[in-house]
Amino acid sequence: MCGILAAAFLMSESKIKVAVVGASGYTGQELLRLLIMHPYVELVAVTSRAEAGRGIGEVFPRFAAAPSIDGLTFIEPDMDALEATGAEFAFLALPHGVASEFAVPLLERGFRVVDLSADFRLNCPDVYEEFYDHPHPAPDLLEQAVYGLVESRREEITSADLVASPGCYPTSILTPLLPLVRGGLIDASSIVVSSLSGTSGAGKSAKVPFLFCEVNESIRAYGAPRHRHLSEIEQELSLAADRDVKISFVPHLMPINAGIASTIFADLAVDAAKASQLIAEALDGAYAECPFIRIIGEGQFADTKHVVRTNFVDIGWVIDARTDRLILSSAEDNLGKGAGSQAIQSFNVMHGLPETAGLLNF
Amino acid sequence: MCGILAAAFLMSESKIKVAVVGASGYTGQELLRLLIMHPYVELVAVTSRAEAGRGIGEVFPRFAAAPSIDGLTFIEPDMDALEATGAEFAFLALPHGVASEFAVPLLERGFRVVDLSADFRLNCPDVYEEFYDHPHPAPDLLEQAVYGLVESRREEITSADLVASPGCYPTSILTPLLPLVRGGLIDASSIVVSSLSGTSGAGKSAKVPFLFCEVNESIRAYGAPRHRHLSEIEQELSLAADRDVKISFVPHLMPINAGIASTIFADLAVDAAKASQLIAEALDGAYAECPFIRIIGEGQFADTKHVVRTNFVDIGWVIDARTDRLILSSAEDNLGKGAGSQAIQSFNVMHGLPETAGLLNF
Amino acid sequence: MCGILAAAFLMSESKIKVAVVGASGYTGQELLRLLIMHPYVELVAVTSRAEAGRGIGEVFPRFAAAPSIDGLTFIEPDMDALEATGAEFAFLALPHGVASEFAVPLLERGFRVVDLSADFRLNCPDVYEEFYDHPHPAPDLLEQAVYGLVESRREEITSADLVASPGCYPTSILTPLLPLVRGGLIDASSIVVSSLSGTSGAGKSAKVPFLFCEVNESIRAYGAPRHRHLSEIEQELSLAADRDVKISFVPHLMPINAGIASTIFADLAVDAAKASQLIAEALDGAYAECPFIRIIGEGQFADTKHVVRTNFVDIGWVIDARTDRLILSSAEDNLGKGAGSQAIQSFNVMHGLPETAGLLNF
Amino acid sequence: MCGILAAAFLMSESKIKVAVVGASGYTGQELLRLLIMHPYVELVAVTSRAEAGRGIGEVFPRFAAAPSIDGLTFIEPDMDALEATGAEFAFLALPHGVASEFAVPLLERGFRVVDLSADFRLNCPDVYEEFYDHPHPAPDLLEQAVYGLVESRREEITSADLVASPGCYPTSILTPLLPLVRGGLIDASSIVVSSLSGTSGAGKSAKVPFLFCEVNESIRAYGAPRHRHLSEIEQELSLAADRDVKISFVPHLMPINAGIASTIFADLAVDAAKASQLIAEALDGAYAECPFIRIIGEGQFADTKHVVRTNFVDIGWVIDARTDRLILSSAEDNLGKGAGSQAIQSFNVMHGLPETAGLLNF
Repeated sequence: MCGILAAAFLMSESKIKVAVVGASGYTGQELLRLLIMHPYVELVAVTSRAEAGRGIGEVFPRFAAAPSIDGLTFIEPDMDALEATGAEFAFLALPHGVASEFAVPLLERGFRVVDLSADFRLNCPDVYEEFYDHPHPAPDLLEQAVYGLVESRREEITSADLVASPGCYPTSILTPLLPLVRGGLIDASSIVVSSLSGTSGAGKSAKVPFLFCEVNESIRAYGAPRHRHLSEIEQELSLAADRDVKISFVPHLMPINAGIASTIFADLAVDAAKASQLIAEALDGAYAECPFIRIIGEGQFADTKHVVRTNFVDIGWVIDARTDRLILSSAEDNLGKGAGSQAIQSFNVMHGLPETAGLLNF
Repeated sequence: MCGILAAAFLMSESKIKVAVVGASGYTGQELLRLLIMHPYVELVAVTSRAEAGRGIGEVFPRFAAAPSIDGLTFIEPDMDALEATGAEFAFLALPHGVASEFAVPLLERGFRVVDLSADFRLNCPDVYEEFYDHPHPAPDLLEQAVYGLVESRREEITSADLVASPGCYPTSILTPLLPLVRGGLIDASSIVVSSLSGTSGAGKSAKVPFLFCEVNESIRAYGAPRHRHLSEIEQELSLAADRDVKISFVPHLMPINAGIASTIFADLAVDAAKASQLIAEALDGAYAECPFIRIIGEGQFADTKHVVRTNFVDIGWVIDARTDRLILSSAEDNLGKGAGSQAIQSFNVMHGLPETAGLLNF
Repeated sequence: MCGILAAAFLMSESKIKVAVVGASGYTGQELLRLLIMHPYVELVAVTSRAEAGRGIGEVFPRFAAAPSIDGLTFIEPDMDALEATGAEFAFLALPHGVASEFAVPLLERGFRVVDLSADFRLNCPDVYEEFYDHPHPAPDLLEQAVYGLVESRREEITSADLVASPGCYPTSILTPLLPLVRGGLIDASSIVVSSLSGTSGAGKSAKVPFLFCEVNESIRAYGAPRHRHLSEIEQELSLAADRDVKISFVPHLMPINAGIASTIFADLAVDAAKASQLIAEALDGAYAECPFIRIIGEGQFADTKHVVRTNFVDIGWVIDARTDRLILSSAEDNLGKGAGSQAIQSFNVMHGLPETAGLLNF
Repeated sequence: MCGILAAAFLMSESKIKVAVVGASGYTGQELLRLLIMHPYVELVAVTSRAEAGRGIGEVFPRFAAAPSIDGLTFIEPDMDALEATGAEFAFLALPHGVASEFAVPLLERGFRVVDLSADFRLNCPDVYEEFYDHPHPAPDLLEQAVYGLVESRREEITSADLVASPGCYPTSILTPLLPLVRGGLIDASSIVVSSLSGTSGAGKSAKVPFLFCEVNESIRAYGAPRHRHLSEIEQELSLAADRDVKISFVPHLMPINAGIASTIFADLAVDAAKASQLIAEALDGAYAECPFIRIIGEGQFADTKHVVRTNFVDIGWVIDARTDRLILSSAEDNLGKGAGSQAIQSFNVMHGLPETAGLLNF
């Protein structure tokens, strides 16, 4: 904790006025949970068509006694109303396709924006259409949007007005893989991923397959072989490899509320005997200055229970010398580093704040 | 957040040096979770016979990247070693019977202490022996110990050197009942309680009945009719009623990690038609200045998921006019307001700090 | 297993042709699970508006390879179509208010019926209207309907054409209480009940409060003080006590798929010192000939995990001598003895079959 | 149901007298659950050092009212005592290394045996020592033991006296893979497996990592890269491929009681355009006569909740044409087809009984 932070605590006039657009789902809830205690944030607006007119504490009883939200109620997502609150920054926690409808006018009115949807994650509108089954709604903005993986794009994010916060699965897959693909330590074309996600990833809408009795005591794969998140995973891996990369990816639905564990297999591109040291050096080196990546080391497997409700990604691995493969293990919170807290991490970087501001909860 | 807090952040020399004795269980873990981010606390010692020599982040991977615990390792619970760390305050998270062995020498060496065990909760050593099946290990300290329910004993706690933090069930039962018993709104002799507790209440020791496969998909009562916590519940109710009160109490083991929901039945001692208003006034009045008691109102039932990992108790109720009974519903986190965070609440009050310091997490 | 059973296995022409009306929910699924292996049953029709045209194995993949349902598909709940299947017996697994619409014409066409809804459980149409908020849809049938608690009405059920199978909570509450109320061992006006139910009790419709993430890691009361099941509980207790009985009842939603545990408090009407023996005699005596009631004894608490997917009710108790109260503990499967298997138990009795036919699964 | 079955029901003297050695764990419990209702089995002995002298219903309250076990108590695992019960067949549910100590004398005394441990699954004692870290305890028996995957070895099992029932992971991995490896449809050297297992797989011994609070809300890999089950998986795949096969395998611990879902990746060895048809033909063909393998088809993912407490394996798959890989999805019950019910399937085949006898529970 430094003096700058303390100063910010003292002067609420220096806080950044923030709106959360689409705050009634699980991602919105996680954003609110962190923003209401963020030392540099004044939460001035939360929107939800479904909940307009209700107090935050009414919709989320957990937050009912938070002093910082006293009197704050959900409003309709209206541009003029948002601007009237004095908000200068917006988090968009909206479905893909809808987010861009808000991003365009907000940017025009001078807001800086972190969008948590998929709308601005892809560089190429054709890939968007291939994976999301409709034309990109705002292709002109793609060039200015920055993919919000701070560990990979810290500099660009600093000055960005529009950050596309990464998807939950991509974050858990890219953080372990990017340094190794960049370093040529694994054969990128051999990558195979099995990811296990908590049910909050399916959202808060009422659907029979996500009822308690359908998910509890059930383990099931879904969405393969062409899950939408493949598009951004392959885009970022291709950039890292400097060539076209395609991978196989199978997500699974888990009977836990939150958390993603990814297990990643790849053929070693280096001698197995030297792999231990090279992998460790690549990961430790890449993330030495990254407060939210915890390299738990060789022989270790990441456990979601150590990262839920945090912004951490834990990364471990083993060398499968019998088959010359590397097996990576990562864990994160799909609502945290995979969504809400990662968006706030970008927010911090965009404002020159300590990267960990408001995010060191255990 | 006030200027005093910010100042405390700046000057680590002004922080209170704190030890946690017996920190390797679930209560210890919850204490550590909160203390490592407490703005007025410098954690200087954590003890555990089983974990001595290991780093905090090694034992609790969740805390591995907490800057405040960098380099802190578990030590043996040795008095001289504790004193050598500079600690001036100790939380005892030890089994009953063991806690007093540490409380006595710590108090002699000038420590102030919050004990989370049952050792100092009862005024009368005979009642202790009746419920805990062995003579009280330090009866001389009972008079100086203060029962650490801040909502009930704020003044006494302020100046106490030894606070006996209440049990998990008692907290969830006493907070709704005390104002009503004091006000004579219910017949204290008619009180019947069904409490439902998360499995962390059973502790972290390896026992078959608490294996995942034994608890998952299982609902079971236990411990009735003479659970140990009855002793402190009845002591406090008797003080409130100014006469001897005995109640019936059945705890149940729940397949959730943390949280207690208590459902309390009592005959109304006032006219059912007027009860709604009188109950509301009594509860609202008693807790108007208590930041951690949330009166959710008539017709509302408390849900553990809104309070886990917080220091809140939610309290709702219904009038059962058909039978002239009041039905109270409360929820808390058994590790939070029922243990760790409640102990820190007392710590805050003992030091004249804001009561909510370090405890406003959502 | 007796020779009659074996004979039935051999001669499928002697099997009873059965229809399940409204088979797509959790209760319907449990009925199907048992009926497809019932040695005396030929399942000839299953109806569901939503699933008409789909195979049973398609709707319930669990049953996909059951030889007995080969080729059986869901049909619309049409009277003529039902009759055309040759069905002579119908289980109704429909919402209250809807069930009677089918019961009337089915009885007219000569079907015998077990209705699992609340429509025919109450003797008095006024009580129905008070608790279900609409006039009774078929009051003329109330007199002929028999409350399907075999342990209480075995003789009447034998010759009944319309059996109203009891609700899930009532079964778990009445089985322990009826012998004690009949015997005058407890004060019926003092009865207070806390029941804990698995989430399947809420049905299979898509509603946000029953999503996995809303129920998991959550414990909450609901529905008090006037849950609909009170009406049949109080009717049966009043009959047993031979006077008007009112009780207090609080159900709770549990993060388990199936199972109900009920904890029941009542003032002893006999001397506490003699209560142990009298309670044991009353329960053992009442259920000596009842294969599905397991008296687990004094000092024992029933656990849902020992009864789920069975037709058993486990009953234990403790004497709370400090307060002169009896505390009863029961467990059953809300979908089993609380719904599907209990309905089949009545079916067995109605046909003079062994009471346990098709129900001895462990 | 055929006449033979009915006859067996009638004449208990024709039943096979069976012992379960080591019946106190989760696998033993599942064996007992099925054997007590098996129409051709008379359970005459159950052993457990820990539970000797206690009734089955006392140790497993779930079975308390089973007529078939009336009076049966656990005995010490003594050879003479076992023989004295008249048992002629033994299921061994013991740890590896211990099972062989019983198999040898039991076979000498004329028992036929299904061993559920790993002791007789491997053809080669050196591989056993490599994976189990101690010399094989009875290498002479390896030649006579038959690997008890009925779908693969039905003929050999028919006449075997010693069947080594497959491990839980191997069953879920081999059933989808064997026909495809035999048919040369995939590149066996490219196989990568991610398996997700319920916690009962860890057994019933009291260890902190398997406490409810450690497993609930947690997802974690373990045991890679050299889990013991690799040895039998690779043995069987090598036999099918007629060359040495090594694979990569990562098991994960799941917060469910029972069930294994395996997701298997392999490079297609045939043209992706033709793969759909060839895969379907290979799987449908291989399992046309196998009542417990359900081919759920292309585009389908297996869900553990449809197979728990059954002997089924569900198998689905997708073609990942973008990467020329096949992705297989299987589900089984680790205690069922992965242990107890699979052992009974072998028992049925060994005795010329219907393969499904006692195993068609839904």
